[in-house]
Amino acid sequence: MTVQPILIDGQWRQADATSTFRAENPATRESLPDEYPVSAWNDCDSALEAATAAFEVMRGIPGEDIARFLEEYASRIEARRDELVEMANAETALPVSPRLADVELPRTTNQLRQAAAAAREGSWAMPTIDTATGIRSCYAPIGPVCVFGPNNFPLAFGSVSGGDFAAAIAAGNPVIAKANSSHPGTTRILAEEADAARQATDMPPGTVQLIYRTSHPDGERLVSDPRTGATGYTGSRSAGLKLKTAADAAGRPIYLELSSVNPVVILPGALRERSDEIAGEFTTSCLMGTGQFCTNPGLVVLLKGEETSTFVKMLGDKFQQAPVGTLLSKGVKTNLRANLDVLKEAGAKVIVGDTEGGGQGYSHANTLLSVTGEEFLANAEALQTEAFGNTSLLVVADDVDQVCAAIGRLEGNLTGCVYSDTAGSDDEAYDQIAPHLRGRVGRLLNDKMPTGVAISPAMNHGGPYPATGHPGFTAVGIPASLARFSMLECYDNVRPHRLPACLQDKNPNGTAWRYVDGRWTQDDVTSG
Amino acid sequence: MTVQPILIDGQWRQADATSTFRAENPATRESLPDEYPVSAWNDCDSALEAATAAFEVMRGIPGEDIARFLEEYASRIEARRDELVEMANAETALPVSPRLADVELPRTTNQLRQAAAAAREGSWAMPTIDTATGIRSCYAPIGPVCVFGPNNFPLAFGSVSGGDFAAAIAAGNPVIAKANSSHPGTTRILAEEADAARQATDMPPGTVQLIYRTSHPDGERLVSDPRTGATGYTGSRSAGLKLKTAADAAGRPIYLELSSVNPVVILPGALRERSDEIAGEFTTSCLMGTGQFCTNPGLVVLLKGEETSTFVKMLGDKFQQAPVGTLLSKGVKTNLRANLDVLKEAGAKVIVGDTEGGGQGYSHANTLLSVTGEEFLANAEALQTEAFGNTSLLVVADDVDQVCAAIGRLEGNLTGCVYSDTAGSDDEAYDQIAPHLRGRVGRLLNDKMPTGVAISPAMNHGGPYPATGHPGFTAVGIPASLARFSMLECYDNVRPHRLPACLQDKNPNGTAWRYVDGRWTQDDVTSG
Repeated sequence: MTVQPILIDGQWRQADATSTFRAENPATRESLPDEYPVSAWNDCDSALEAATAAFEVMRGIPGEDIARFLEEYASRIEARRDELVEMANAETALPVSPRLADVELPRTTNQLRQAAAAAREGSWAMPTIDTATGIRSCYAPIGPVCVFGPNNFPLAFGSVSGGDFAAAIAAGNPVIAKANSSHPGTTRILAEEADAARQATDMPPGTVQLIYRTSHPDGERLVSDPRTGATGYTGSRSAGLKLKTAADAAGRPIYLELSSVNPVVILPGALRERSDEIAGEFTTSCLMGTGQFCTNPGLVVLLKGEETSTFVKMLGDKFQQAPVGTLLSKGVKTNLRANLDVLKEAGAKVIVGDTEGGGQGYSHANTLLSVTGEEFLANAEALQTEAFGNTSLLVVADDVDQVCAAIGRLEGNLTGCVYSDTAGSDDEAYDQIAPHLRGRVGRLLNDKMPTGVAISPAMNHGGPYPATGHPGFTAVGIPASLARFSMLECYDNVRPHRLPACLQDKNPNGTAWRYVDGRWTQDDVTSG
Repeated sequence: MTVQPILIDGQWRQADATSTFRAENPATRESLPDEYPVSAWNDCDSALEAATAAFEVMRGIPGEDIARFLEEYASRIEARRDELVEMANAETALPVSPRLADVELPRTTNQLRQAAAAAREGSWAMPTIDTATGIRSCYAPIGPVCVFGPNNFPLAFGSVSGGDFAAAIAAGNPVIAKANSSHPGTTRILAEEADAARQATDMPPGTVQLIYRTSHPDGERLVSDPRTGATGYTGSRSAGLKLKTAADAAGRPIYLELSSVNPVVILPGALRERSDEIAGEFTTSCLMGTGQFCTNPGLVVLLKGEETSTFVKMLGDKFQQAPVGTLLSKGVKTNLRANLDVLKEAGAKVIVGDTEGGGQGYSHANTLLSVTGEEFLANAEALQTEAFGNTSLLVVADDVDQVCAAIGRLEGNLTGCVYSDTAGSDDEAYDQIAPHLRGRVGRLLNDKMPTGVAISPAMNHGGPYPATGHPGFTAVGIPASLARFSMLECYDNVRPHRLPACLQDKNPNGTAWRYVDGRWTQDDVTSG
């Protein structure tokens, strides 16, 4: 059996492989036929060399060229849609429809097209012009970007197709993609189309490269190499923190999305008003994709009382009745079991579930656990362990003060929600709770579950550590997500014809918003 | 003798001191009379508690209130101007006039007033509104900010008065200032006025706090404490990297300005055209403040030839004729000597200077060293050692390719300059050189020395590692410098009256620029 080639410098070529691996179909527990290489450092080094060369070209080309590449790629993904979703389904067990074909793939191509539009329009660079001092600045590409994608969105967060990829390319950087080992075949098809689009639009060979896997030390070396501009990582906290330590020590920016339990506070008035509706929303959100969302509502805070008791019972019924989905891999199943045990050892009681199986292949019963507020406070660190999968922990607090205390013990999270009634009986509690939650989450929601992550310019898919590595950046949302992969370039007294196009007096495309002498405008600079 | 008190939670109180220290007058080498405490962790802990309490208040108050505080403080600094510059002169030997009284103090108050204007105006928060999805976001204060100021600008970069302070406060954060040990008395006077301004404008007690010194381990604990929102540090690379390691491991943002040799390339056409003028500019820039500027031109790259030989001779004469200034401290003098030795051991030859003394107190002759391009390439790491003080290394390259190669070996720097002629004979060389320099520096200059750092919205006083810790942020320039001390806060489906003022439909002050549905505007949101 031949080993699949890697994509380096525009060529599909055999890896310098130290070993090989295969993906597994989590629904059948069978290995898939294709064999993929684990690359030695030599492959990383070649990729860095080619990316460096590509960067020298890319930093000089207009946003329009980058946009054409991204749009060509999006169209090519659509042309191979059936093959892609079939492969992604085989590697992840995520349903072909609606999930992969009707939700995730369109989201992916939409995201690539939004990134294209941002590259073309040019406002993302925030060109800033101070005519009085003759100083001009803008954000500019940072250099080769390494992308480590997660297991849970093979397309929309894929290392060669997802949000980090789109943002890095749109900002003008080449990407070195490290495939997620659970879906190498999906990543291969995507990289084939990315490279074909690159050729069709005359982008340099090192624009998009793909390595399937490396040793951990080589991964750490990759993110800390002086040729690396920055890294985007989405995945487990333990692996991410190792990469972070290496990148930090070398002073190379790294953006990480590590873990989140996404607290949801449901106040009693809301339950009295619409408990059925909320139970439905919560169950759908928590079990969607077998609970394997970064923004899965893994911690629900309730107030002791009759409406809460009824609600918890309702949730238990819904969780038992809902079909049990397949988990993404054997590893996810193992970790889910281990983390449920951590929660139970820390005092969590089982409401429903907690047994293995129940679905196709790797699966685990839909599981609800609970603790009292007092128990949570006594062991808050262990009780906010993320159990990635179709499970959630309910915290039933004695009063609003205890809710605030529990929130005060939370680590940084991506999201935090509060459900309250519309008549106003929960308002006092909301006003007490919201300030505690606000500083601990990137996105604060009202009356809405956190699993929908709209690709909006106002989105923040980020949050305080350890949800991510820095609370000032978002991984989703265009143009804001591009900022991660840029550096601030300032031009002081630089002769006009030597300035980059976006900083010259004439607004090159007429569309970019520029901050000129304290005003945002799309106009040309007319003053001397 | 009584030990000076520290400022904690609005009270000047005795420190929990493990020992004490005094500052020294570098012009007389005599200890100054006041004794200052080295704080135990207990003082840091108290400061963090008070700052946390202050933050809860500050994050809710309007920018107008913060602006009034900063403006009151600026006026109070002006009222104590004579006492301040006298103390700063005694502690740093920087001349009272023009440097301290006429340049640095006005820059400091101007910066505080610009920060006040930014807080009042509100655009810095980049409120972003997407009416289609109901998602709104803005930058918001990050929490207590620790500021470690440098030795070289006791006012304008001072921990309780300078750029980091102004940016952190304007963004809505309390500041815990760690004084630079070389000018505690200056910092004390400033903190007295900051606290008086705080009282006069009803800001919470923990808004501004001052600790003079801690042990290194306690400094590391301070920047990594979970209550710390972020840290701003300007100073030596070795101390800064220890703080960075600690903060990174804890996931607490830290912004550092560490070192820079600020390469200046002077092309032959420029020398033929105006060598006198350039020699004057360079000498002034390099010896200004006895060379103790972050942006001091410490590395000059020239092309071998007659005009360069003449120019080097001219520089040597000017360096010998120029008065020798006093260095900021004994430590600066010791380090300068040690780093000149590193350069000499790496092959640098002395053109002029290299002897101790020659000025008042701690001083060292104005020193010019040189190497050939080939020598530089053979030992590039050692030959870009920063020798902080009145010195510069000239690199005389064989040709433009060698210039590019030398630049390619440089670490990240704050600035990079190219001088070229106006007739165009240097243009080809410029076009070859500039792309190499561009990615290695935060600010690229033409025909201008780097020591002027205008407080412009377009300024970038930052650059790739190890000049700073992250190439996307600037320490000077308002409003951009505020971004360092903020987190991205997103509101998804949050009920209108619960949104922060800057995200409500009505633009609260009518002055903040907001990104509404893809357009920057100062208008209210009118769509549904």
